[in-house]
Amino acid sequence: MARALHEAEAAAKRGEVPIGAVIACDRRVIASAGNRTRELHDPTAHAEMLVLQEACTKFQSQRIGDCDLYVTLEPCPMCAAAISFARIRRLYYAASDPKGGGVEHGPRVFSQATCNHSPELYTGVDEVRAANLLRSFFAVRRD
Amino acid sequence: MARALHEAEAAAKRGEVPIGAVIACDRRVIASAGNRTRELHDPTAHAEMLVLQEACTKFQSQRIGDCDLYVTLEPCPMCAAAISFARIRRLYYAASDPKGGGVEHGPRVFSQATCNHSPELYTGVDEVRAANLLRSFFAVRRD
Repeated sequence: MARALHEAEAAAKRGEVPIGAVIACDRRVIASAGNRTRELHDPTAHAEMLVLQEACTKFQSQRIGDCDLYVTLEPCPMCAAAISFARIRRLYYAASDPKGGGVEHGPRVFSQATCNHSPELYTGVDEVRAANLLRSFFAVRRD
Repeated sequence: MARALHEAEAAAKRGEVPIGAVIACDRRVIASAGNRTRELHDPTAHAEMLVLQEACTKFQSQRIGDCDLYVTLEPCPMCAAAISFARIRRLYYAASDPKGGGVEHGPRVFSQATCNHSPELYTGVDEVRAANLLRSFFAVRRD
């Protein structure tokens, strides 16, 4: 999660909403990225999507079931569904997102009968640091 | 929708699940694509995601609220959320997808209180042709 938080900080420096993600397999980092929606003019370029695409390319496979994903904020419905498609084994996330999350909130993607794969969930890891990063980012922009 | 069906047929010829999508603005086609998950080893490379990314790149904007999206199958939760993020004005889709859909089925992404934008919905357009394409594709693979 430390690496994901580092990616979130780097995203903030680029003017992006500070969210970072890492995919690891056997304790080895396979992919890491921060949010790039603004830079790429791409509403799908969330940190989780970027690491999933990078890791799947590396393994030349749509399914990377031995991999775990770490992200600083509860994934949105788009990212939660992509995490399910890729068969991610364990999902670790830091802060909850009542406004935009799709795991504990809103569409609760993994809880649906139509969801073919749900990762093991570990939440609240480094929650305070991740939440503070987001709060500081938006506080500056509201001034 | 005819153009989206053509993309779905082209996807089938490449060995991909036959789903096609088109984004149009003022009756002009901005982007069209078929499913490429297999070719790209990318579980996020659904037809809708590819056209959203292409159209947003063309307009250099994450929000393309004057655009309409046509797709041959009910979008999954990942694509439905991406369609909402991009602020697509009207969503037209052909066949419903009780197993994997995220609009009328499963997480019903646009119906959630946390969904910030829901497109106008037009369903059942060329439904029989789109459903037959999918049926034929899977029938051959089950032999």
